[in-house]
Amino acid sequence: MLITLCGGEGAGKSTQVLRLAQNLEKKGYGVVSTREPGGTAIGRKIRALLLDPANGAMVADTELFLYAADRAQHLAEVVRPALAAGKLVISDRFADSTTVYQGVARGLAPRRIQQVHDLVLQGLCPDITFLMDLPPEEGLARALSQAALGARKAEEMRFEQETLVFHRNIRQGFLDLAEKEKHRFFIMDAMQHPDLLTEQMLAIVEEKLLEIQTR
Amino acid sequence: MLITLCGGEGAGKSTQVLRLAQNLEKKGYGVVSTREPGGTAIGRKIRALLLDPANGAMVADTELFLYAADRAQHLAEVVRPALAAGKLVISDRFADSTTVYQGVARGLAPRRIQQVHDLVLQGLCPDITFLMDLPPEEGLARALSQAALGARKAEEMRFEQETLVFHRNIRQGFLDLAEKEKHRFFIMDAMQHPDLLTEQMLAIVEEKLLEIQTR
Repeated sequence: MLITLCGGEGAGKSTQVLRLAQNLEKKGYGVVSTREPGGTAIGRKIRALLLDPANGAMVADTELFLYAADRAQHLAEVVRPALAAGKLVISDRFADSTTVYQGVARGLAPRRIQQVHDLVLQGLCPDITFLMDLPPEEGLARALSQAALGARKAEEMRFEQETLVFHRNIRQGFLDLAEKEKHRFFIMDAMQHPDLLTEQMLAIVEEKLLEIQTR
Repeated sequence: MLITLCGGEGAGKSTQVLRLAQNLEKKGYGVVSTREPGGTAIGRKIRALLLDPANGAMVADTELFLYAADRAQHLAEVVRPALAAGKLVISDRFADSTTVYQGVARGLAPRRIQQVHDLVLQGLCPDITFLMDLPPEEGLARALSQAALGARKAEEMRFEQETLVFHRNIRQGFLDLAEKEKHRFFIMDAMQHPDLLTEQMLAIVEEKLLEIQTR
């Protein structure tokens, strides 16, 4: 089963990936937690290219194909082998983030992004996607305070430097996508206490696991 | 007008790009000579990723999308602006090299490679493609004599054998592609003297320019 988390900056995605993985492992499931971009050694080099503000001349298409390259390597090295071994894969960001960020930030046509997804994913689709939703003011404040504490790298803050309007558009982009892909999306209120969030997400995962087992 | 050169190693592509550019400039044409991969600053970083032996775990798809990213940046930064300014663009390698190398070396389906080309090129097609054709034995010997510093070790002879088979396949791949895309391909006998080659290629370019001008 493939579980993905998406949403804006500072929504607590990486925290919840960690908590979900720990809880599911405790229950006896084999879990692989991972992330995009940068879920592989080669992917981390691609991630550095993508997030380095020095590469300001990078055009939208280049970005799109670099994310595709990162994802292709991630699928081949991490995701598909883990799924084939019957594990639960939990990924901090996946294709949906490309859809929303590249679409909103770079104005790429949804159809163009979808064509690249089709080539990369070859039919693979998350079973559950958690949208960690919260007002961008709150998310940005969290991300910035993490950066101040040294928990986020300055050279990876390219998106955080964008305007509030940009982040509002990102939020709306994710909500629109969730509406279109209802069958797999669960919109989580990320303003809630982390414990409560983990509990809700765990319940959703276990219900889905039961549904798959009895299918 | 977009002119591209393709072919195996040691076929004299970069020499002929230089000579073509110099001769066409002398005749008063605005010329931009470039290359793939690595025709831009960002592209050179992508090229480094692609050619670094440390990245041996790289899968075929990752390679394919990294070449696409390099090409997208090259098109946006170099090729399209130069074409829009009415210049002649001469590129040492272009999409055809991906088609042949990724197809032959990585066994990627031609249709898959073509789908990525369609997304990247968005209808752009070289006006002239020179296939610098020569027996791989000769090309390898030239490439090796350019690089060789001393005696070759026994274990390197095996590699040489492998590359010979590989290069035969590459040669055939280019010849097959030239057959399919006859309208733009010119197969050049790269065993000829460089002066003679430049002369023949110049004649082809000038004929094409005349054809375009009187269209």
